[in-house]
Amino acid sequence: MISKLSKKILPFAVVTSLAATAIASAITPNPAKAEQDEDKGKVKNVIFLIGDGMGQSYTTAYRYLKDDPSTPIMEKTEFDKYLVGTQMTYPEDEHENITDSASAATAMSAGVKTYNAAIAVDNDHAEVKTVLEQAKEVGKSTGLVATSEITHATPAAFGAHNISRKNMDAIADDYYDKMISGKHKVDVLLGGGTNNFVRKDRNIVEQFKKDGYSYVTDREGLLKDNNNQILGLFAPGGLDKAIDRTEKTPSLEEMTNAAINRLSKNKDGFFLMVEGSQIDWAGHDNDIVGAMSEMQDFEKAFKAAIDFAKKDGHTLVIATADHSTGGLSVGANGKYNFDANPIKAAKRTPDFISHEIVAGANVEETLKKYITLQLTDKEIQSVKDAAVSKDQGKISNAIKVIFDVRSNAGWTTGGHTGEDVPVYAYGPGKEMFSGLIDNTDNAKNIFKILKGKKEEE
Amino acid sequence: MISKLSKKILPFAVVTSLAATAIASAITPNPAKAEQDEDKGKVKNVIFLIGDGMGQSYTTAYRYLKDDPSTPIMEKTEFDKYLVGTQMTYPEDEHENITDSASAATAMSAGVKTYNAAIAVDNDHAEVKTVLEQAKEVGKSTGLVATSEITHATPAAFGAHNISRKNMDAIADDYYDKMISGKHKVDVLLGGGTNNFVRKDRNIVEQFKKDGYSYVTDREGLLKDNNNQILGLFAPGGLDKAIDRTEKTPSLEEMTNAAINRLSKNKDGFFLMVEGSQIDWAGHDNDIVGAMSEMQDFEKAFKAAIDFAKKDGHTLVIATADHSTGGLSVGANGKYNFDANPIKAAKRTPDFISHEIVAGANVEETLKKYITLQLTDKEIQSVKDAAVSKDQGKISNAIKVIFDVRSNAGWTTGGHTGEDVPVYAYGPGKEMFSGLIDNTDNAKNIFKILKGKKEEE
Repeated sequence: MISKLSKKILPFAVVTSLAATAIASAITPNPAKAEQDEDKGKVKNVIFLIGDGMGQSYTTAYRYLKDDPSTPIMEKTEFDKYLVGTQMTYPEDEHENITDSASAATAMSAGVKTYNAAIAVDNDHAEVKTVLEQAKEVGKSTGLVATSEITHATPAAFGAHNISRKNMDAIADDYYDKMISGKHKVDVLLGGGTNNFVRKDRNIVEQFKKDGYSYVTDREGLLKDNNNQILGLFAPGGLDKAIDRTEKTPSLEEMTNAAINRLSKNKDGFFLMVEGSQIDWAGHDNDIVGAMSEMQDFEKAFKAAIDFAKKDGHTLVIATADHSTGGLSVGANGKYNFDANPIKAAKRTPDFISHEIVAGANVEETLKKYITLQLTDKEIQSVKDAAVSKDQGKISNAIKVIFDVRSNAGWTTGGHTGEDVPVYAYGPGKEMFSGLIDNTDNAKNIFKILKGKKEEE
Repeated sequence: MISKLSKKILPFAVVTSLAATAIASAITPNPAKAEQDEDKGKVKNVIFLIGDGMGQSYTTAYRYLKDDPSTPIMEKTEFDKYLVGTQMTYPEDEHENITDSASAATAMSAGVKTYNAAIAVDNDHAEVKTVLEQAKEVGKSTGLVATSEITHATPAAFGAHNISRKNMDAIADDYYDKMISGKHKVDVLLGGGTNNFVRKDRNIVEQFKKDGYSYVTDREGLLKDNNNQILGLFAPGGLDKAIDRTEKTPSLEEMTNAAINRLSKNKDGFFLMVEGSQIDWAGHDNDIVGAMSEMQDFEKAFKAAIDFAKKDGHTLVIATADHSTGGLSVGANGKYNFDANPIKAAKRTPDFISHEIVAGANVEETLKKYITLQLTDKEIQSVKDAAVSKDQGKISNAIKVIFDVRSNAGWTTGGHTGEDVPVYAYGPGKEMFSGLIDNTDNAKNIFKILKGKKEEE
């Protein structure tokens, strides 16, 4: 990997995505690829699921949480059955060697390492083609589903191009404006982010509606609709965390099923990207309750994809993460016990609870309402002390400490970490994802599958 | 997994290792096993390498360390090429759900989940047969290699039985006293721990020598010797960390090659366990310099095993960890950069440097002698301040902080953590270790291989 210094010396513009690909291929040959290529034609649909921030410590902690205490073994999660390996996540950024979600998503969507914040553009700011675009080109239907804004880094890097993830309005514009063969790129868009679509300068919702898209804003609307093309925006920004949602907000599983039901009507198949966006957000917040709540939301969406793939027989499902977040560890402070019971006792996230306290709710009553633990006087007092500040962040932190101390969850950062992340795969072609792969291999493999399909047609 | 409460209610004695095996098999069927069984006969030798404490964050951090900054990609380590999956590490302990090395080693040596501290005994304190013992029974040669005392938890759980890892004298006795078909269990014993063999009550070294074993105590002695059976003890306790060793102490690679050279003379094959013992010790110390030094020592031993296996063609090599340690994260404190350069600038571990300071060496000179970094006045002062105490631990900690801050290595604990750990495999039968496995599957798979061999004879 090129260091800061050598990057400045090298003529970096010549290291195009093509050259990087060639170097990577030359160094890591995969003799098994040839025989796998025979299977390519079998794949009609690809469902690519990303647990944002879902490092190994998250998938393991979640297994501890799901464990059935009445059996001598620790039961496996839905993910566990399909583990095929791990992937490297490092970016190709001049200043940072730990990835952000935009760079990692570009690697997975386009097969190109790039700088942090890049939305499907390379280090020269040139647009790089994504697997979603390739799928649309070969006549497949396409979908993006997320619990963040649907214009957030990860979905954006599959369906748009921008020099910065921050330009979410421009990314929403891209979803509508950029056509492939005279058609909109993405047939199903489900997530949050109304603010980026309904703006003073432009109302993209109305534009999509004019072009025949359904527009829904709540769970009921989503479940009632049966139009092939749909825009669903369920919150001004990101959705609430799963554990905090009301019945008005669909689960990631429901959004995933809604997408699959529509996209699978295309006899030429589909490409769908589903993101469990807020595993990462909970990680940034060092919030073990929120993280596990989002893991469950993501696991159910993964199972929905697997269930469809099992029935269908021609669907490849991949689930992985873009990086890990928070430096979460399963166990901390010398304790050899990760206790999931306190986490299971939470009925809302610390953020949700602290918002109620800031709004004037009684501290002790609110804690007891949402946390079915026998809290100690000291624990209650710690939140009361924080509440004096009326600072929502401080109150939330005080509540998070209770869960960290009781569960022995450890954290080292409010940012991302660089450890390899797990890769799960099911269906024809899954062998292409086994062993230790690079994040760019995801796109490279899917391109191969999509191009193979095209050649046959 | 049975909780504390339900364990007290259930008649736990009935959950024998056999029953636990049956339950695990029933719940996690592996239809691919049948076809793999056809390969069993091909495996003549098994080399099982354990990086103690070598979680995913260690293998990833080590890749960052080994990266060649002159290329656009991050080069893979020796391990990376052989990744086949990950394994779960949880113990079956009444009070703790994060494993220690003894319980994990028993799972991997005997296929039985047990309590923390157990050396190849189950939860009823009954001895459980190990793969090393099985190998000896079927006529293979056997070896144990470690950089800890050779009587320490991990090697002990392959070659001895005890209700507690603490009883290292009794474990040394076991190595000599317990025979299989009138022969000593372990033909090659290389590591540290003279204190457990040469004691006031007994001199096991002399006993081994009388029975025809060579006895060596330094690198030169080891390299000159060519006897098939050998006891090599290179330190009173554990060996020095790789980066701190003098030329008198062999590397793990040299010990591994010494073992392979001897054991491979047996036409019926061999079983060898090699432990990179002190990756874990460095993790307990939250010492990133020591951890990476031990990773390199272990990587070279792994490569030696792979090199032999490639030439031999009938050798299965597995490398994995027993658990992770320290809650190490690649990146910390909001920084998106894991900088390996400060780690590479260390010529000795913080422990080594602090010992010299305690012995009277000048702080600033000693730091500059062993750390080729432009240390700031503040960094030097922080060690000077710690040196006033003449407390080696405090001085060492002050030095470790310099490396942590500069590299952005994060830590959450002085103990172990529960995340799944990587599994690497090469050679015939490697498919049996792919995907997500349980630590007990290692022993179960090796038993199958060894028993298949026996049936053929």
